[in-house]
Amino acid sequence: MNTDEREIRELVDTWMAATKAGDVAGVLDLMTDDAKFLVAGRPPFGKEQFAKALEPPAPGTAMPTIDGHSDIQEVHVEGNLAYIVTQLSVDVTPPGGPTTRRTGHTLTVLRKQGGRWQLARDANLLTPVKL
Amino acid sequence: MNTDEREIRELVDTWMAATKAGDVAGVLDLMTDDAKFLVAGRPPFGKEQFAKALEPPAPGTAMPTIDGHSDIQEVHVEGNLAYIVTQLSVDVTPPGGPTTRRTGHTLTVLRKQGGRWQLARDANLLTPVKL
Repeated sequence: MNTDEREIRELVDTWMAATKAGDVAGVLDLMTDDAKFLVAGRPPFGKEQFAKALEPPAPGTAMPTIDGHSDIQEVHVEGNLAYIVTQLSVDVTPPGGPTTRRTGHTLTVLRKQGGRWQLARDANLLTPVKL
Repeated sequence: MNTDEREIRELVDTWMAATKAGDVAGVLDLMTDDAKFLVAGRPPFGKEQFAKALEPPAPGTAMPTIDGHSDIQEVHVEGNLAYIVTQLSVDVTPPGGPTTRRTGHTLTVLRKQGGRWQLARDANLLTPVKL
């Protein structure tokens, strides 16, 4: 495994850990300023909307905990551009429960800027599964 | 628009036209041998399964006509790797009808091999809409 691939895998691990810890600034730091997220049923959205979704609706309101597990199935790097295919399972538990789970795959494009890999485009194909 | 971007846009146009014409070999020629397609609710699939879905279940059986319209919203090229974000609308009409429509976005990775761009990875986020 070369340096780029290792750094990209570390980025995904850091993303998962920051999400679980509720570290919004930490997650935002892992994406480019022009990052775009594609999900089914709505137009692509950017960093600002991603951040809003992670913030509590009112100060002091408890947020769901988000516990994701990723299995990176492919990493392809060319210069400062890369893509990865990941199999994901994400459990979301609002305060008081119950937990819901979504599983599936993501196709993610990453760019290296200033010597550092960041997530630039992400297509999320996860669907709900019964627990 | 540089040569790579023009060639990638032409590839998408050719893909749409070949699909509409039912030219299976023509579509398969536009993807890498290791192409992977990601859709919601099933594991990623490759060129062989893609081809099977375009073939009639029995010889002489009529296939649906597939009429897609694409709006390429972004093309990003780095060396022999590129990604595009596309807004798509696809009408599928089985023999005798009725037509169903799916709309949404795709995130597609392309690779240039032997001087020629081909589709390598495609994440399809289209959902059904009422007509």
